[in-house]
Amino acid sequence: MAHERITSAQNPLVKRLQLLLERKGREESGSYLIEGAHLVEEALNSGAAVTTILYDSERELNAACRQALTNISPDVHVVAASEAVLAKLSETKSPQGIVAVVKKNQHNWEEWTEQLLQAKQDVLLLFLDELQDPGNLGTILRTAEAAGVDGVVLGRGSVDLYNGKVVRATMGAIFRLPVFTQDLTVAADQWRQKGGRMLCSTLRENSRSYDSVDYSGKVAIVIGNEGRGVSDEMITQADELVHIPIYGQAESLNAAVAAGLLVYEARRKKDRSH
Amino acid sequence: MAHERITSAQNPLVKRLQLLLERKGREESGSYLIEGAHLVEEALNSGAAVTTILYDSERELNAACRQALTNISPDVHVVAASEAVLAKLSETKSPQGIVAVVKKNQHNWEEWTEQLLQAKQDVLLLFLDELQDPGNLGTILRTAEAAGVDGVVLGRGSVDLYNGKVVRATMGAIFRLPVFTQDLTVAADQWRQKGGRMLCSTLRENSRSYDSVDYSGKVAIVIGNEGRGVSDEMITQADELVHIPIYGQAESLNAAVAAGLLVYEARRKKDRSH
Repeated sequence: MAHERITSAQNPLVKRLQLLLERKGREESGSYLIEGAHLVEEALNSGAAVTTILYDSERELNAACRQALTNISPDVHVVAASEAVLAKLSETKSPQGIVAVVKKNQHNWEEWTEQLLQAKQDVLLLFLDELQDPGNLGTILRTAEAAGVDGVVLGRGSVDLYNGKVVRATMGAIFRLPVFTQDLTVAADQWRQKGGRMLCSTLRENSRSYDSVDYSGKVAIVIGNEGRGVSDEMITQADELVHIPIYGQAESLNAAVAAGLLVYEARRKKDRSH
Repeated sequence: MAHERITSAQNPLVKRLQLLLERKGREESGSYLIEGAHLVEEALNSGAAVTTILYDSERELNAACRQALTNISPDVHVVAASEAVLAKLSETKSPQGIVAVVKKNQHNWEEWTEQLLQAKQDVLLLFLDELQDPGNLGTILRTAEAAGVDGVVLGRGSVDLYNGKVVRATMGAIFRLPVFTQDLTVAADQWRQKGGRMLCSTLRENSRSYDSVDYSGKVAIVIGNEGRGVSDEMITQADELVHIPIYGQAESLNAAVAAGLLVYEARRKKDRSH
């Protein structure tokens, strides 16, 4: 697949890819690093903008990944490297012998919503307000895709969407689901000006149970920060406050579990109203 | 609160507590270590069997934790220690200046089910089949408590219930929710002999959607391993196979999200049938 083979961690390409392990490097380059045969396969099969692949040429790749690599576009720079070089680019305990560079999504939030609302009036969005935990964010994106959410807005002050843990926890949803990093109150304001409704998840007393709420039409569900919940600013803009009942002594639910319950409830109600 | 102050990591008590950071040490001692003011406070307020508390005497504890410590039983061994000693016992990036030793739960699965079924006929259990990820297990226990699940059976081959990451992710549910580590097929057999039904979560085609299933009476929901799902042995014993619909391209849901959707659906259906 490739003629060159990199064995030195001092190689300029390796140095450049190492920068992608940090948020700053990802922001400067507009690219991110993914790791492991399954994610690389998902990226290629989802049509994500893969620019470079580095793989351990002395290691057996799994069949699905080999298959994905044989059909690869000639634009993708495929490079063999040593195990030691790949270990330098790995964030996991057991490096899987393959990494790839993917360009960040370039969707424009305002254009995207315009087009979406022209195409359909029954829409489900998810707004995430200063979400901090990478595992939570990744799991929420995976769940949102499974529930048929149209798109996700990640509020500023959240964990970086392209953090390695986030990407791995999405299980590939990051390559397919439109996700926008925006000032959340601005995005919420734009959404409401377009006639969209906004439901905020909260434990406040003046909220309605999530299974007695109207999810029809253009709806965005807001999930809050793991510790503080949804900000007062977003609560003020909400059309409806919703809560998930707590039956035991627990104080609250994990953010990804709460998001899962809300998007699945919304999806189900939307399906039934047709 | 204490007269002694430990400043050496070579202190026998510190050495003994360090063993609890490993599964083997927890199994040999029948105790586990918890970390952080919030968890220690939850343990004390939940009546968990706290035997020893080590705290950094030069650091300010939060008010709730100080309050919990003032009401503490004289049986609890409260010891001041240096920051360096506490760092040795911490598994987190920012040690919180307090750890405690808690005795493992001593519930007996067979006796407990007998008593439970004498007390009530509308029961919801959760069976976990070789769950591997500590964050998932902790989040599932937190969610189970929130949904009013009566008890959880953790199948052998799963991650250790008393792993630090599991305990932290439970947010205190581990101190209150009855959890049993058992051979899962044996526990399932005993459960069904007592007239309990067993619903297995699966993506198989011959399964019913989770929102069209009867959850009344004595029900156990089985959640499978993150990669392989529920074992064939458990599937064979199931009274019903259930799935959560996937609307997008995602292959599956995260185990904790799936568990959340199932236990909340069961709880809701049970409440409505009354």
